[in-house]
Amino acid sequence: MKVSKRGAVPPFYVMEVMKAAAAREAEGKSVLHLEVGQPATRAPEWVRRAAMAAAGEARLGYTDALGMPELRARIARHYKDYYGVRVPAERIAVTTGSSGAFLLSFLATMDAGDRIALAEPGYPAYRNILASLDIEAVGVPTGPETRFQPTPDLLDQVEGPLDALLVATPANPTGTMLDTESMRDLISYCDRRDMRLIVDEIYHGITYHGPAVTAAALSDRVIIINSFSKYFSMTGWRLGWMVVPEDLHRSVECLAQNHFISPPALSQHAAIAAFDCMEEVEANMVRYRQNRDLLLAELPKAGLDDLAPADGAFYIYANVSRLTNDSVAFCQRMLAETGIAATPGIDFDPPRGHQYVRFSFAGTPEDMAEAAERLKVWLA
Amino acid sequence: MKVSKRGAVPPFYVMEVMKAAAAREAEGKSVLHLEVGQPATRAPEWVRRAAMAAAGEARLGYTDALGMPELRARIARHYKDYYGVRVPAERIAVTTGSSGAFLLSFLATMDAGDRIALAEPGYPAYRNILASLDIEAVGVPTGPETRFQPTPDLLDQVEGPLDALLVATPANPTGTMLDTESMRDLISYCDRRDMRLIVDEIYHGITYHGPAVTAAALSDRVIIINSFSKYFSMTGWRLGWMVVPEDLHRSVECLAQNHFISPPALSQHAAIAAFDCMEEVEANMVRYRQNRDLLLAELPKAGLDDLAPADGAFYIYANVSRLTNDSVAFCQRMLAETGIAATPGIDFDPPRGHQYVRFSFAGTPEDMAEAAERLKVWLA
Repeated sequence: MKVSKRGAVPPFYVMEVMKAAAAREAEGKSVLHLEVGQPATRAPEWVRRAAMAAAGEARLGYTDALGMPELRARIARHYKDYYGVRVPAERIAVTTGSSGAFLLSFLATMDAGDRIALAEPGYPAYRNILASLDIEAVGVPTGPETRFQPTPDLLDQVEGPLDALLVATPANPTGTMLDTESMRDLISYCDRRDMRLIVDEIYHGITYHGPAVTAAALSDRVIIINSFSKYFSMTGWRLGWMVVPEDLHRSVECLAQNHFISPPALSQHAAIAAFDCMEEVEANMVRYRQNRDLLLAELPKAGLDDLAPADGAFYIYANVSRLTNDSVAFCQRMLAETGIAATPGIDFDPPRGHQYVRFSFAGTPEDMAEAAERLKVWLA
Repeated sequence: MKVSKRGAVPPFYVMEVMKAAAAREAEGKSVLHLEVGQPATRAPEWVRRAAMAAAGEARLGYTDALGMPELRARIARHYKDYYGVRVPAERIAVTTGSSGAFLLSFLATMDAGDRIALAEPGYPAYRNILASLDIEAVGVPTGPETRFQPTPDLLDQVEGPLDALLVATPANPTGTMLDTESMRDLISYCDRRDMRLIVDEIYHGITYHGPAVTAAALSDRVIIINSFSKYFSMTGWRLGWMVVPEDLHRSVECLAQNHFISPPALSQHAAIAAFDCMEEVEANMVRYRQNRDLLLAELPKAGLDDLAPADGAFYIYANVSRLTNDSVAFCQRMLAETGIAATPGIDFDPPRGHQYVRFSFAGTPEDMAEAAERLKVWLA
């Protein structure tokens, strides 16, 4: 029987690495996990306590499709407290992870055949979700000269019309961020061309040179996507949010009603407490910073000296073109010979990722130090 | 800026009723809620305890895209225990509610422009999700003569080619079920035409004349969708599952990785306990049965005597064509004059639902009795 073409999603190459890593661990050998894209820490204590209370006491039926009013209000207040930006609670849509927010924002703004530009390298699920919705993801090749971010110049070089632009700041896998001026340039570029702009801010909070700029400070026409997963260490809770431009409110609400009914209620009850746990989540930042400093100092000693800036998030994207032209084979060999698991760049950049590897430093400082030592020996 | 056509989802008319009901309650007047599509009960005690334990102790990171192995194994065992059917755990995909399962099954089996038949009346989100994916939902008008279910004869009357068929048993809003023979007929109809068959079994467990037949007992080519929401009173936990035919496994897994990463981890930890709470959930059935018996006996005394069979689920779908030709206005008047909230049939059947109303009996026996009394007075 028919299997759809849109269901023929390309695999993540990192899955092969993870399978090999699991096999290695099953043999009793150690693996240093620098491939994982999630915090090693648990959700903040008050979040977990709120979840326990809600599991015991609350009814946990469907909530409003756009989320519990208390949570929407709390997220709106976060914009005031954290960025000094006023965002009305009515513009906040709580979603089932940022994954849910991507689906809603893509469906609300684009029809089949429409075209959206996005940076290469970038988060692979963007283009796979888009493909499944018959929206064309137009890769914009980026490099260190634009800090791996799209610019008006690069967008001008795209062939054919564009209906939208998606940027991430900090970005995965490069960690690079858009400053106020770059963000403003992209906003006015899109405004002038009547293009929708979607800004993925899911790594906000995890930054190393001062806070990230939120697009909400610069425009109320931008769709902003954020999540409790990364900064608040709540990946498995599947809770994110959008800041929705007014003209999309009704579409997003109706799509959410039909596609999700509501985001997970228990996670919503718990997440209200997240913004009161800043001390605990900032303590995680100490570890990320320590890991980042260590890798940025030690990887070059192993010969890996062409690294993306890592302004934020917990990834280092390394150009390994002097060592290999096949990042999948390189990662497999690295795992087999050093026990270090990392993600081949081809997952993020099909045309050029065979010369890149992503190292995640979401793990422990001990693992980072050990990985750096092993790499130095291996690549010597 | 552009709002997509696929985002122009029609509203649920019941939302207007719910808004009016909320306004009425804000004025201090009582409302009998016969519009809600979810259990009034909380999740079973051991589920809530498991959630509390997991919130306190577990890491709650991403799980496998298709769900925690323990939960998949437990669901597979449920097929053995409950239906006497062997379903390997590898064929179970845990999903973010049945909503997530609908998205995955539609994307995995159909491309833009493909056509799927479904019964009118039926669950409105089916056709709205399908429309957002550019899949054509072909409504098959059904009535009491086929117990509101599609049959090979009715499908033969559909103009144009069909790529798939979606049926629900028990169905929402009618409650009617497919017996073994009817199910077998539809399976072989689809097999002969190389059509995918998707069977929505989310109301399984909530049945009044013996257990429902699962399509899993008859074919391993059918996509089966189920949920913890209804029988286990876990709507807000957003957890469902699919039984996936072997040839779709890879598509469903890749689509799930990209669209959801994983289902909510806390809900998964908790749901493992659900199948050990059969006594508690069966106690809810006593109340549903009592409510159903009361309404089936009393509504005819109010003049509402043309009712769908209500073999299962917790809905009574009433033909009100002798009273109105505008079910939306009828529901609004009923709410204003009696305080009873119910759902206009037009939500389930755009062409003919203006002559139908859905009463949900998921609430308390006291509310059902009071509603019946008020309707008798109002319609006298």
